Amino acid sequence: MTKGEQTRRQIVQKAAPLFNRKGYEGTSLSDLMNATGLQKGGIYRHFSSKEELATEAFDYAWQKAVGRRLEGIESSADSVDRLKKMISNFVEFRSELVPGGCPLMNTAVEADDGNAVLRARAKKALQSWMGRLSKITADGIRENQIDRRMDPRKLSQLIIGALEGALLISRLQKDHQALHDARQHLNDYLERSVRAKTNRK
Amino acid sequence: MTKGEQTRRQIVQKAAPLFNRKGYEGTSLSDLMNATGLQKGGIYRHFSSKEELATEAFDYAWQKAVGRRLEGIESSADSVDRLKKMISNFVEFRSELVPGGCPLMNTAVEADDGNAVLRARAKKALQSWMGRLSKITADGIRENQIDRRMDPRKLSQLIIGALEGALLISRLQKDHQALHDARQHLNDYLERSVRAKTNRK
Repeated sequence: MTKGEQTRRQIVQKAAPLFNRKGYEGTSLSDLMNATGLQKGGIYRHFSSKEELATEAFDYAWQKAVGRRLEGIESSADSVDRLKKMISNFVEFRSELVPGGCPLMNTAVEADDGNAVLRARAKKALQSWMGRLSKITADGIRENQIDRRMDPRKLSQLIIGALEGALLISRLQKDHQALHDARQHLNDYLERSVRAKTNRK
Repeated sequence: MTKGEQTRRQIVQKAAPLFNRKGYEGTSLSDLMNATGLQKGGIYRHFSSKEELATEAFDYAWQKAVGRRLEGIESSADSVDRLKKMISNFVEFRSELVPGGCPLMNTAVEADDGNAVLRARAKKALQSWMGRLSKITADGIRENQIDRRMDPRKLSQLIIGALEGALLISRLQKDHQALHDARQHLNDYLERSVRAKTNRK
């Protein structure tokens, strides 16, 4: 990595918590200068625009989040257990991410009527996350671990929606109860209705 | 209503879609001037600050949303049916609200690391919505319509979280599928696990 690439990477890492907490519109040039210790010229030598920096900051925050959420899921051979592991990761790893909550939710909510580039990035992130969960479900159906009446895409959306909604409530209430309850609800649902009958514990 | 009160009300109505779509930080004075047709002085004659206007705009958008969501729920004597009606209202009435999605989600996401006054307003809105749903559930338990093992507060959080999360996905994907699927999931859950066994259809 050249020195220029290192600086660029450091700018992204320092900008990511700002954009994730304050949003695209709420993050000012002086916020970015304070966080990076660089002048305007020092930042914009590496990025053509605030939008480009915000997009890379989103990708950085999202990769960190999705890495945590998918951590260790391969260690189970059972598809329902994999889904449950992802749910637990979502609930447990909150403090180790880029501060400010879920980058997908933050960017989606701000950009859904606004910045088209950031909106497209958030949409792509959602699709890729849904794709991972859908694949686990489709694999599970093929291996007779998951009820074949399940629609992989619908199940993924349900899980993601329940977790993101619970996170919204948890952040507003500053406690984890809604997240823990969502995990319990989803786990019960996975055991009762998603796991193939012959495989139910 | 005096002329001053009328003007104040009109400013709030015109500002509400701006704040709901673009956020507090993303809404500029010139946006507000364009939307209201007033100069800066004409706006700030009625409001002491942008924060005061944003707070009233939130209350206006939220009242409209919550009014729709609770519409007609009293017409059923059955508590589970009341919860199902609220869920359907949430899913069906999207186009008739202040544009920009759910005011609670938008304000919560932007303000959870930011403006404390708006954050408090969003928290209060969530609590009041949860209070309404909790009361329906508590009434249902007392009248033997709802399983007495249900926790009214947990059930309210689950319903609100699932709906808000599905709305996030629906808005990003620009289709209603996630909302319709969340309704189906919640309705199944209400019939299977929430309705008192002696009352199950």
